Amino acid sequence: MSSSEAVPQARVVVQQCLSARLQVKPPSQENEAEYVEVGRGIIIYICFLKGSTEDLVEKMVRSTLGVRLSESEPNGKLVSVLDLPGDVLIVPQATLGGKTKGKAMQYHSNIAKTEGQELYTKFCTMCAETFETSTKTKEANKTVKHGTYGNRQVLTVVTNGPYTHVLDF
Amino acid sequence: MSSSEAVPQARVVVQQCLSARLQVKPPSQENEAEYVEVGRGIIIYICFLKGSTEDLVEKMVRSTLGVRLSESEPNGKLVSVLDLPGDVLIVPQATLGGKTKGKAMQYHSNIAKTEGQELYTKFCTMCAETFETSTKTKEANKTVKHGTYGNRQVLTVVTNGPYTHVLDF
Repeated sequence: MSSSEAVPQARVVVQQCLSARLQVKPPSQENEAEYVEVGRGIIIYICFLKGSTEDLVEKMVRSTLGVRLSESEPNGKLVSVLDLPGDVLIVPQATLGGKTKGKAMQYHSNIAKTEGQELYTKFCTMCAETFETSTKTKEANKTVKHGTYGNRQVLTVVTNGPYTHVLDF
Repeated sequence: MSSSEAVPQARVVVQQCLSARLQVKPPSQENEAEYVEVGRGIIIYICFLKGSTEDLVEKMVRSTLGVRLSESEPNGKLVSVLDLPGDVLIVPQATLGGKTKGKAMQYHSNIAKTEGQELYTKFCTMCAETFETSTKTKEANKTVKHGTYGNRQVLTVVTNGPYTHVLDF
């Protein structure tokens, strides 16, 4: 992970949740909206900035799933979401690359949309693979769900402490 | 607002919400838990770091309430929460000062707790004052609610797009 002095290539915001529900397909004339849901675990809001690479995604997955940001029961000891074990909800959030200019936000640091989508897909796939190969998450049947890149992220979150962290890569 | 290269003295995360509910007093043997609620508006997660001052709080309030991060109806045009007009929910969130060291988080940049509490109180007070003196929020009876510093922030958020932004000061 880069120091705060370096220019980040990607930004992740992590929040603890007890449950969360995210729209992955908006309603249409023919169909109702579609949602994914997770139980206790973490929400990963993610944004790729200029300079992001597939190699960085690997590091991001390892770090975000490995960092101890989840309170375990009964004593509140901090463990990783893999050790909790808990669910993961990944929310694409290009706005995290924003910087204020006066009263407006600018997103000049953000990666191009097609590249961002590829890295996002890779991040989601690698998180899911990690969950499938990690003994605790696999045995407890924990899952990785994710939002649709480029969509409006219609979201409901219930938490007993968001315990919000910003991770720059 | 400082550039990304400078070391921040405070960090704010802003999310849009349709509604939110925050515990401000945990349940006890005698009493049920107490909550505050807001409607459409923004959630401000806030953390003071070393070097924060009362002068900085003034700037933070002006910037956070003035920046155009709220989608207005019917056309989605971005306006400030004061112009929406919408509600504000302030959530103290010392974890925002965290930096990873291996798999653990460290909070060496965070301000001392007593100072942080003072600045937090000032931030909440100034936001409320701004709402009372701003024509649109006053006429629409919009309010500023806030969490209890140092408490566990038991929170439910409903949003049609969190539109998450990190503001460093």
